[in-house]
Amino acid sequence: MEKVKMILDCDTGHDDAIAIMFAAGHPDIELLGITTVSGNVTLDKTTSNTLQMCQQLHLDVPVYAGMDRPLVREAYHAPEIHGETGLDGIEFEELTYKAQPKHAVNFLIDTFMASDGDITLVPVGPLTNVAMALRLEPRIAKKMKRIVLMGGSCGLGNSTPSAEFNIYADPEAAHVVFHSGVDIVMMGLDLTLQAETTGEIVERMHAIGNKAGKLFGDIMSFTIGTVKEKYGKDACAVHDVTAVAYLVAPELFETVPMYTDIDINHGISYGRTVCDCNHVTGLPANAHVGMGLNVPKFWELVESVIRRYE
Amino acid sequence: MEKVKMILDCDTGHDDAIAIMFAAGHPDIELLGITTVSGNVTLDKTTSNTLQMCQQLHLDVPVYAGMDRPLVREAYHAPEIHGETGLDGIEFEELTYKAQPKHAVNFLIDTFMASDGDITLVPVGPLTNVAMALRLEPRIAKKMKRIVLMGGSCGLGNSTPSAEFNIYADPEAAHVVFHSGVDIVMMGLDLTLQAETTGEIVERMHAIGNKAGKLFGDIMSFTIGTVKEKYGKDACAVHDVTAVAYLVAPELFETVPMYTDIDINHGISYGRTVCDCNHVTGLPANAHVGMGLNVPKFWELVESVIRRYE
Amino acid sequence: MEKVKMILDCDTGHDDAIAIMFAAGHPDIELLGITTVSGNVTLDKTTSNTLQMCQQLHLDVPVYAGMDRPLVREAYHAPEIHGETGLDGIEFEELTYKAQPKHAVNFLIDTFMASDGDITLVPVGPLTNVAMALRLEPRIAKKMKRIVLMGGSCGLGNSTPSAEFNIYADPEAAHVVFHSGVDIVMMGLDLTLQAETTGEIVERMHAIGNKAGKLFGDIMSFTIGTVKEKYGKDACAVHDVTAVAYLVAPELFETVPMYTDIDINHGISYGRTVCDCNHVTGLPANAHVGMGLNVPKFWELVESVIRRYE
Amino acid sequence: MEKVKMILDCDTGHDDAIAIMFAAGHPDIELLGITTVSGNVTLDKTTSNTLQMCQQLHLDVPVYAGMDRPLVREAYHAPEIHGETGLDGIEFEELTYKAQPKHAVNFLIDTFMASDGDITLVPVGPLTNVAMALRLEPRIAKKMKRIVLMGGSCGLGNSTPSAEFNIYADPEAAHVVFHSGVDIVMMGLDLTLQAETTGEIVERMHAIGNKAGKLFGDIMSFTIGTVKEKYGKDACAVHDVTAVAYLVAPELFETVPMYTDIDINHGISYGRTVCDCNHVTGLPANAHVGMGLNVPKFWELVESVIRRYE
Repeated sequence: MEKVKMILDCDTGHDDAIAIMFAAGHPDIELLGITTVSGNVTLDKTTSNTLQMCQQLHLDVPVYAGMDRPLVREAYHAPEIHGETGLDGIEFEELTYKAQPKHAVNFLIDTFMASDGDITLVPVGPLTNVAMALRLEPRIAKKMKRIVLMGGSCGLGNSTPSAEFNIYADPEAAHVVFHSGVDIVMMGLDLTLQAETTGEIVERMHAIGNKAGKLFGDIMSFTIGTVKEKYGKDACAVHDVTAVAYLVAPELFETVPMYTDIDINHGISYGRTVCDCNHVTGLPANAHVGMGLNVPKFWELVESVIRRYE
Repeated sequence: MEKVKMILDCDTGHDDAIAIMFAAGHPDIELLGITTVSGNVTLDKTTSNTLQMCQQLHLDVPVYAGMDRPLVREAYHAPEIHGETGLDGIEFEELTYKAQPKHAVNFLIDTFMASDGDITLVPVGPLTNVAMALRLEPRIAKKMKRIVLMGGSCGLGNSTPSAEFNIYADPEAAHVVFHSGVDIVMMGLDLTLQAETTGEIVERMHAIGNKAGKLFGDIMSFTIGTVKEKYGKDACAVHDVTAVAYLVAPELFETVPMYTDIDINHGISYGRTVCDCNHVTGLPANAHVGMGLNVPKFWELVESVIRRYE
Repeated sequence: MEKVKMILDCDTGHDDAIAIMFAAGHPDIELLGITTVSGNVTLDKTTSNTLQMCQQLHLDVPVYAGMDRPLVREAYHAPEIHGETGLDGIEFEELTYKAQPKHAVNFLIDTFMASDGDITLVPVGPLTNVAMALRLEPRIAKKMKRIVLMGGSCGLGNSTPSAEFNIYADPEAAHVVFHSGVDIVMMGLDLTLQAETTGEIVERMHAIGNKAGKLFGDIMSFTIGTVKEKYGKDACAVHDVTAVAYLVAPELFETVPMYTDIDINHGISYGRTVCDCNHVTGLPANAHVGMGLNVPKFWELVESVIRRYE
Repeated sequence: MEKVKMILDCDTGHDDAIAIMFAAGHPDIELLGITTVSGNVTLDKTTSNTLQMCQQLHLDVPVYAGMDRPLVREAYHAPEIHGETGLDGIEFEELTYKAQPKHAVNFLIDTFMASDGDITLVPVGPLTNVAMALRLEPRIAKKMKRIVLMGGSCGLGNSTPSAEFNIYADPEAAHVVFHSGVDIVMMGLDLTLQAETTGEIVERMHAIGNKAGKLFGDIMSFTIGTVKEKYGKDACAVHDVTAVAYLVAPELFETVPMYTDIDINHGISYGRTVCDCNHVTGLPANAHVGMGLNVPKFWELVESVIRRYE
């Protein structure tokens, strides 16, 4: 099988870290680069957290720092979920890995323009880098094989009753992306909340005994803790990795094509992904929205990737 | 058991007709009056349809015509669901029943002001009459035992991807009601779509053999047809009757208290009931939102009421 | 000349008080009633201030209390302009005058429905009473000769950079009124700020030597003081009386027909009267907007009315 | 006197062409480059029109093509004012001048980052290039001496009753710029409509007898014609050149510091510059807004620059 070429765009962040681990570790994925963006925490932290993961896992993937603030709105972060560093829970090494000098937006533009249209972009944070690249060089829209993103929700939000964090953190960027004409797969909360990490899952990955398994355990234990404190639940979702997993195992996912728009009015629904699940608008679908996940197979897949690390 | 006093506010409409049948027929309900409002069809039709139902079922309930247009927005109807008359499917009698001369809004004000605070208001159409009454005589807020309404949705809408019909048809009125301080039970699509009328249910009610059963059959057969044509489904919900049923059988319903607001910005989420199911706003609950229904018991209850008619 | 029949709808308030004085005192006006509304201060105060003016000037005009809160939004007042009572500056008498038992909205409906279409409504506060009446009995739209209102602005606002007080205090009501089809004359800030009361004007009216002149002086001196404190100006506008004066002396006013809409989105332009002065929308005019005032003649007219009081 | 360093950002367009003529011709201005943006017409046309002007006037100024669409909204142009080409009215030469390969946004970033903070940016089209540069490299905000822009209006708009063309064509970009912390001078319609080109002015410039004078005449005659057709007026404003003139003759302008925000809600005030002229918000000024122009001196200045061309 030919490898799937992808670029990961993330705001690392706990579940982003697992997405990095998966994307870099899966044998059928060729991870061309990682771009970072302001989101869960500030850009300097999402970048250093990304480098930290690469260093601890000895990954040979270039990292590019991107946008340090949203397209239009003021910055919005989620420290109550991810802690002070954005990756609280792991043991931090002194960082020797360094980001590339090129701006993430320029990396995206250059890479897609030079490509044969065979690269999938996987954004798992706010869509600021992606929107900037699409605006600065609109021709990349036709060069992108597909965008498989984590964000949004047909149903309820988690940052507000209406809006999911990644979209709420930059609704205008999301508006640009969803109206770009690029083929979009959206892994929203409807799907990602099914990828629930329980204590049992943490044990199972930790028991693998390697560095990756330990990182998974440290990372997800922390998030389970903050989620428990905030919502009283004993488990938390690994949202971001679902988008990466979809590239190599689409058969585990049920997606539904539908028209999806972003509310960029500044009222109580600001940042909502308005998904026309019931086809009441009559507008053509612009996104494949993830609705169902084969949960056992998904965890088997994640485990198999973690096992590949030394 | 003391009878439950209620006023039904409706925009008859097919499922409104079933709600009338239920409210007038249940032995433990004292139906003090029916008020009509513009909604599924225009006010003249919702009023004559209401009178038609009362006449065919020989009901002795005063009917009051109310608001012929929404509080602020332009009129919005749903003829594609309810047909030209709003009650297509039944055999219409020549109407001898007449509406009372008093305006519905004044009936609501006078009745609640004269009451001991023991009357429940059950609006199953757009909330225009209710909002007007609450604004014209704010003291009725403290006189209402409770408002049990059909409308809204935590999840998806049916008029737009965001908004349910009754709320979309008058979002500003809904905003007034949800911020009125009155104790609210909201039967939204999350719950009412569970009250699905299948062909089997139609047969069962029709087989009762009385006028009420025949009306149920004629009414719901028509709606099943339009829903099938529009959405390709073989069943449709009897939304409105759930709100009435709640008064006499609350044990069949699971409701969750939550903060609920109405989006009155004029964007793609206009008319959405923004329900804080996950408690992300920290705001105190102002509505009990229906989430679960004991479906078999619900139909037994509906059947038992229909059987009481001659 | 036949008398001009009018109803004054106000939120008394300083310049409302002058409008009462003018409407009741002008020989060619038949003032059928005064309705009060929440606005500059709360309804109980606007009503008692209205009665206070009627009592001190020995007016024989029925007063009807109306809406105590806006159509949709929360209450908004302007105590920093009008002081604690809403009419700070005058000597208050113990009140023996009383409001009529009928609600202002019902008075409006009953009076217009019984009329020959020859009554002009002059609202100089938030448009809540007017919108409620138009919604509760839509047929009055065709019974109103005209609405001559004080409110709005083509240019800048005074409550926000976008919105004038009367409209900002109830934008949804204004939306109803401007879309009602009734012939509207709008005296907005573009015009009313030309009716500037200076110390010299105060002296001139006070020098008349009667009770009305003294009231004018006490009332406007106070407002000049608060405006000076807030904006550093030595004069203030008598906004409301311009709308009444227009009925008997339209030749003093330059009005321009234009399409006018009300912004009811909840952003920074909430409550703005969006006036298409330059005809860029192509929409037909729904309001005659006051732009120019013959200032000397206006003050002569005001003075002549004050002189008529004993 | 040391020369004023500036970059002109434009969407040429008729009055943009005059701004180019002025900026390149004034002896005290060092025009470092011209960047083009989608606006009056599409980017390809604004760029070729810019090159056309440079070629016909033998200017030695690098031209950089920039953003071909707004930051978030769909493209919006004004062909009814500027004709098919965007510069209808002149005789077009075959183009030998060429745009630089670098993207305008990158030119802005590179130039400002390499500067000593002594360059003024003069945008006279939609603010898309400026917003993109400020987002892609936020540090340029501190490197900009000042932004002197043509756009907006305290009073009425010209694209909608609320919004002026340049801001309406990209409100989200304007929002970024006005909240960037850069010192802003805004030449809105309040000022630019004072810079009215009459037939007399056209004659006067044409009579100079050189190429620049002829271009001025051809350009403005065309616009006077379209404005006459659309609004029935015999004159039209040379909006854009006022912003350039301000750099060398600020004494001809009266500006007022005020808080200015951009309405980015998608209602009838979308794209409005909400200027707090009356200080009702209490927010600190973020823009100096042009209100008054010494018109005779302004035209003398323009004439003197045109005379300098061969």
